[in-house]
Amino acid sequence: MQPLPDVQALRSAHDYRLTRVGVTGIRKPVQVKRAQGSRTLVALLDAFVDLPGQQRGIHMSRNVEAINEAIDHAVQQPVRGIEDLAAGIATDLLKRHDYATIAEVAVEADFFLERTQPSGQKSLEPYSLVASAKAQRGQGVRRSIGALVTGINACPCAMETARKLLEERGIHREGPNITHNQRNRVLLMLETGEAHGVDAEDIIGVAEEGLSAPTYEILKRGDEARLVIRAHERPRFVEDVVREVLSGVVAKWPTLPDDTLVMVRSEAEESIHKHNAFAERVTTLGELRAPAR
Amino acid sequence: MQPLPDVQALRSAHDYRLTRVGVTGIRKPVQVKRAQGSRTLVALLDAFVDLPGQQRGIHMSRNVEAINEAIDHAVQQPVRGIEDLAAGIATDLLKRHDYATIAEVAVEADFFLERTQPSGQKSLEPYSLVASAKAQRGQGVRRSIGALVTGINACPCAMETARKLLEERGIHREGPNITHNQRNRVLLMLETGEAHGVDAEDIIGVAEEGLSAPTYEILKRGDEARLVIRAHERPRFVEDVVREVLSGVVAKWPTLPDDTLVMVRSEAEESIHKHNAFAERVTTLGELRAPAR
Amino acid sequence: MQPLPDVQALRSAHDYRLTRVGVTGIRKPVQVKRAQGSRTLVALLDAFVDLPGQQRGIHMSRNVEAINEAIDHAVQQPVRGIEDLAAGIATDLLKRHDYATIAEVAVEADFFLERTQPSGQKSLEPYSLVASAKAQRGQGVRRSIGALVTGINACPCAMETARKLLEERGIHREGPNITHNQRNRVLLMLETGEAHGVDAEDIIGVAEEGLSAPTYEILKRGDEARLVIRAHERPRFVEDVVREVLSGVVAKWPTLPDDTLVMVRSEAEESIHKHNAFAERVTTLGELRAPAR
Amino acid sequence: MQPLPDVQALRSAHDYRLTRVGVTGIRKPVQVKRAQGSRTLVALLDAFVDLPGQQRGIHMSRNVEAINEAIDHAVQQPVRGIEDLAAGIATDLLKRHDYATIAEVAVEADFFLERTQPSGQKSLEPYSLVASAKAQRGQGVRRSIGALVTGINACPCAMETARKLLEERGIHREGPNITHNQRNRVLLMLETGEAHGVDAEDIIGVAEEGLSAPTYEILKRGDEARLVIRAHERPRFVEDVVREVLSGVVAKWPTLPDDTLVMVRSEAEESIHKHNAFAERVTTLGELRAPAR
Repeated sequence: MQPLPDVQALRSAHDYRLTRVGVTGIRKPVQVKRAQGSRTLVALLDAFVDLPGQQRGIHMSRNVEAINEAIDHAVQQPVRGIEDLAAGIATDLLKRHDYATIAEVAVEADFFLERTQPSGQKSLEPYSLVASAKAQRGQGVRRSIGALVTGINACPCAMETARKLLEERGIHREGPNITHNQRNRVLLMLETGEAHGVDAEDIIGVAEEGLSAPTYEILKRGDEARLVIRAHERPRFVEDVVREVLSGVVAKWPTLPDDTLVMVRSEAEESIHKHNAFAERVTTLGELRAPAR
Repeated sequence: MQPLPDVQALRSAHDYRLTRVGVTGIRKPVQVKRAQGSRTLVALLDAFVDLPGQQRGIHMSRNVEAINEAIDHAVQQPVRGIEDLAAGIATDLLKRHDYATIAEVAVEADFFLERTQPSGQKSLEPYSLVASAKAQRGQGVRRSIGALVTGINACPCAMETARKLLEERGIHREGPNITHNQRNRVLLMLETGEAHGVDAEDIIGVAEEGLSAPTYEILKRGDEARLVIRAHERPRFVEDVVREVLSGVVAKWPTLPDDTLVMVRSEAEESIHKHNAFAERVTTLGELRAPAR
Repeated sequence: MQPLPDVQALRSAHDYRLTRVGVTGIRKPVQVKRAQGSRTLVALLDAFVDLPGQQRGIHMSRNVEAINEAIDHAVQQPVRGIEDLAAGIATDLLKRHDYATIAEVAVEADFFLERTQPSGQKSLEPYSLVASAKAQRGQGVRRSIGALVTGINACPCAMETARKLLEERGIHREGPNITHNQRNRVLLMLETGEAHGVDAEDIIGVAEEGLSAPTYEILKRGDEARLVIRAHERPRFVEDVVREVLSGVVAKWPTLPDDTLVMVRSEAEESIHKHNAFAERVTTLGELRAPAR
Repeated sequence: MQPLPDVQALRSAHDYRLTRVGVTGIRKPVQVKRAQGSRTLVALLDAFVDLPGQQRGIHMSRNVEAINEAIDHAVQQPVRGIEDLAAGIATDLLKRHDYATIAEVAVEADFFLERTQPSGQKSLEPYSLVASAKAQRGQGVRRSIGALVTGINACPCAMETARKLLEERGIHREGPNITHNQRNRVLLMLETGEAHGVDAEDIIGVAEEGLSAPTYEILKRGDEARLVIRAHERPRFVEDVVREVLSGVVAKWPTLPDDTLVMVRSEAEESIHKHNAFAERVTTLGELRAPAR
């Protein structure tokens, strides 16, 4: 049998180079190392390389092979985190595509942590992890790790205006007052030049602490009331949530380098509106540490 | 030129009849009649017929043609509502597919209504309409019309347990107390044997009235505080919301026949949980009017 | 401390009974038994009970507790399938809600199977499992198990009309001819009165066999060409796909009872249209086994 | 009555400035000018400003007011395109938030164009428009306009390897051969420093021309076969699609300035895989016009 034709290796009709070529939406189970042994996460992966102008196409099956080998290897040797999985795949992609100068990999996965209520009730809470890696030939790998955390925020503005209006009706209120509160999704991502040992659980912890309160799958009546009181004692705008998380990042990772990229986002599914409220800061750790920040 | 082969008209390999065959996800602008002239809605349509066991396939382009003709016709003569559009298409489908005994059409569309705040501030609020029609050969057309309405509900349980816990801390509270509140989506659908003149705006009105309060795109500070107070004066579980809407349906449409199908659903995007709370009743108007209901 | 108020146990304002009350969108990792040991699936769960007219609300935390206990128990004793998990939770819900007469649980989960190509290349392919259970007090539990399988279908009609048009241009074609082909999602569900040992892998196998061909994450050039040829040798409408699966169901499960509900759906993401083609049969095994079916 | 408290104007606890603060997911009908009169589009809008470190929050209702006024104004004076709508809102936001230095607005909307088949059959085809505007105080407004177009691409590689394998089986094939084909979504966006009169219909035309063929809602058998033949006569990888569109952009807009940003993306919903193939180029018109591009 003669070899099959290699259409991808042909010269392209228009010799524009391409920024990213690859595969999206690959779903795979991944073994991740945890304190109490390995755990299976279901990951959704994208993997890309760049392509010079002269070559018609990439061999996309190599991207899937790089993913599969990394995942097979993780069965024997669970990865420390999905950002390390991404970094391993990105490095391997540059070996498989010798014409490429950059490889990028993105990973998302559901993640669970056990949380304990004041009453002692335990529950396994769901989070989303997001990670990526970008390998440049001859320049190492930048990697990011982040988490999307769902909690509650209570509005400080409506609390004060409602206090005022109730006062006018002769109802005097001190302490935590009624306001609108809602589901709030916080995204915190850190991107570093090398592996710096940022732990996904710490990311979740810092993000969750920025909210008016964390939320739980199970709340018996006493715990539910305590959570409501706590959220109303810490009323926060989306702007406040982002700033609290920024402050937490500066305190939590004093040894991370100044060029660490930081992205914090809070989106509130406003209970009094049909649209969302949103705040975001994209910056570096160096800027956050400076006096004018 | 000889005629092209008609593969669909061939005998099927396995002569199982099929319940529904057709097209899904057709997007079209539709002209709908309103008090103040016609209005354009962007509709998402599905259209099906059944298929006897002997015939291999339906001619699907006829389904799209039936949709297109109904929509073209609505440019000259705007339809009264999307349920009438669905009924017209379903009736037409039975003419185009002479082997079929049933035709079904489903339509969804964004819809907007102007609302006015206590302060006089106006805003155009978004809703979703959902409609369907089922034509049976020789038996007329059943049609349904419904709306998905987003508002707020405040939890009555956490309000009382938080009142109790605050009391234990020496904080005495009367009247509306702090509790969790959240976005709540209410779906109300009515299905009747014939056109009975149910108006989409009335459906939206009855669904919205079941909530702790409606919500608005724009709320200046005074209106926002009033909305928060109102929602806390009417704390409602998802169970309460569904029952309020059922009660509103009975009161609003006294002349609709007993065999009218009624579906009411409330889903609360719980601010204190990462999951939703849900309540639903599927029944007939006759059952709702009976003493044991 | 005095007991906290039980607002749910109060009498409702409108005494309409409710069809389903509960929680939706609970995400949990579940241990499922497989030939080669247990495996972790990430499940998405809904859990409901009905509610009599006199009672204001259900205690929703009990639904989450029932889910959690079933899932904790599966860590020690992995469940045979997610339909058994659903059945166990539904049974438990009736114990926890003594006023309820019906409990319903729905579960979805990603699932992976290893597949081998003609060339010997292996890959882990993703599928979705869907299951549900409905427990009626004093009447046992009905349960359903199904799978959503993605593959390819090639259109038989365009293959013949293109053959004709090419002929008119002097190009004579025999055997598999060009046509449009596309991603096709097949859903097969079976619902039985009791546990009948239907295996999720068999469901996936029967659904996949109905398509023009299964698809794979990795295809080296030879395997890719063989898959394309195979799909063009078995061109199938969505109608054909559903009937092939129905035929496969009758052959695969000869001992399942006649009252087993069968649902088969094929949706083709038409490459030549922006909308989808769709076919469905909802029936019983008894009807499929009858001469006029 | 005393003035209500202005909590947003307070000093923030942590004086980090914020990159973007605002509202997301606002749905509104918009009047857009077309050759044949105005047309209603349903737009989804986001609107943000930046926030200095000293101020606690923005007044978000001003963002919604800016959107509403622009949309109310478009009823009298339809906008030329949604990028002009975005630019108008962004400019207005800087007036309403005097502390802000940047305002950003993003808009998406369904869009429809009438297309004619070779047979003369007409159909109204759906597309998505995406636009944005970024106003910097004292520096004018950058605006982008783009479209997401769904069509078909046929794989050139599988066409040749299948030709080879058929040959080995004694089947000789010339001309367009069988291959996998699939839905392909192309995104083309252009971002310019000022309004340069780029028309949404031209964007759609250039994007659609990059595909193996455009697709249609209605195809009678002859048109369907002609479309299939045409797609197989122009087999294209996602890499080819992106380069064809880049080439089309250079040819179509010779007078746009070199600093115009260009983004082209093609994503193929691979019929032979469960994942997608993806290619992208992000660049400037200047780079595309240079010899080494």
